[in-house]
Amino acid sequence: MRVLGIDPGLTRCGVGVVDGSVGRPLSMVDVGVVRTSSTLPIAERLVSIERGLDAWIEEHRPDAVAVERVFARSDSSTIMGTAQASGIALVVAARRGLPIAMHTPSEVKAAVSGNGRADKAQVGAMVVRILRLAEPPRPADAADALALAITHVWRGSATSRIDAAVARARAQHPNPVRTR
Amino acid sequence: MRVLGIDPGLTRCGVGVVDGSVGRPLSMVDVGVVRTSSTLPIAERLVSIERGLDAWIEEHRPDAVAVERVFARSDSSTIMGTAQASGIALVVAARRGLPIAMHTPSEVKAAVSGNGRADKAQVGAMVVRILRLAEPPRPADAADALALAITHVWRGSATSRIDAAVARARAQHPNPVRTR
Repeated sequence: MRVLGIDPGLTRCGVGVVDGSVGRPLSMVDVGVVRTSSTLPIAERLVSIERGLDAWIEEHRPDAVAVERVFARSDSSTIMGTAQASGIALVVAARRGLPIAMHTPSEVKAAVSGNGRADKAQVGAMVVRILRLAEPPRPADAADALALAITHVWRGSATSRIDAAVARARAQHPNPVRTR
Repeated sequence: MRVLGIDPGLTRCGVGVVDGSVGRPLSMVDVGVVRTSSTLPIAERLVSIERGLDAWIEEHRPDAVAVERVFARSDSSTIMGTAQASGIALVVAARRGLPIAMHTPSEVKAAVSGNGRADKAQVGAMVVRILRLAEPPRPADAADALALAITHVWRGSATSRIDAAVARARAQHPNPVRTR
């Protein structure tokens, strides 16, 4: 299966595409960052993120999308922008009927390194080993997106067929609720 | 000018459309709520919000959109969903090149009631008076959306022409930044 990992952010959305299945070597298909300029209004930045992520899905046709789960308890001053960017990522994937999973940073760290409190450098090093890369992807958001995709392949295979069927059914029968 | 006010939320997005200009009586065009079921996955709910808000814009063709500004310091457990919904509202409006303004809850309360700490009932009562309604719109999210639209008409007229010109220029020359 092919998984697109997205590490949401208003300034940098990490994106990483991984091919593989449980018990086989994984391979990196592509990795990068969707950037937006902090000089633009937030709404314009979110539209750029939408277009950028759509282009990644269009190009790589993933079977599933894994998005980092954002928490309100984060102390970061950028948390609201991160939450907004994650909302855009979810919509871009859901509109196409793709199965979506959200993994917490701890789950991702535990999956790739065996330690839920691993630091950025450890996660980067494990991504390099797992995908047999020449060097860690830069910036860290790009490495995190690959780690998310790896986590999804390893965790998600059991349920992904069911999720995919449900997502397809939903995409065919959308049910927006609107009342006055 | 016609303004669509949006009070973002994952379960209920308040929406209210107001016609008017500074120094003249304002009138309500429509008010309601875009609801999503808490039994659906978040991504599906965000897609429903996107479709619902798009339908409101399509039907009422506002000249501007006013969205409540969400803060991380809110204690609410629903803050992340609210932030994600606000991101969708911003994208839906920005994609169409509509001028967007964000107003804080205090700004809205001060604009409609003269008191930045007014409670829900006071805001609802002032919305009724300003728009000459028979009764306060229910639920409160709907009244808040109208209050946002009123605030925008009263605050926004001076700069809205410039904003509109800038938004149109941006819509014609989108500049998504994508690097690898």
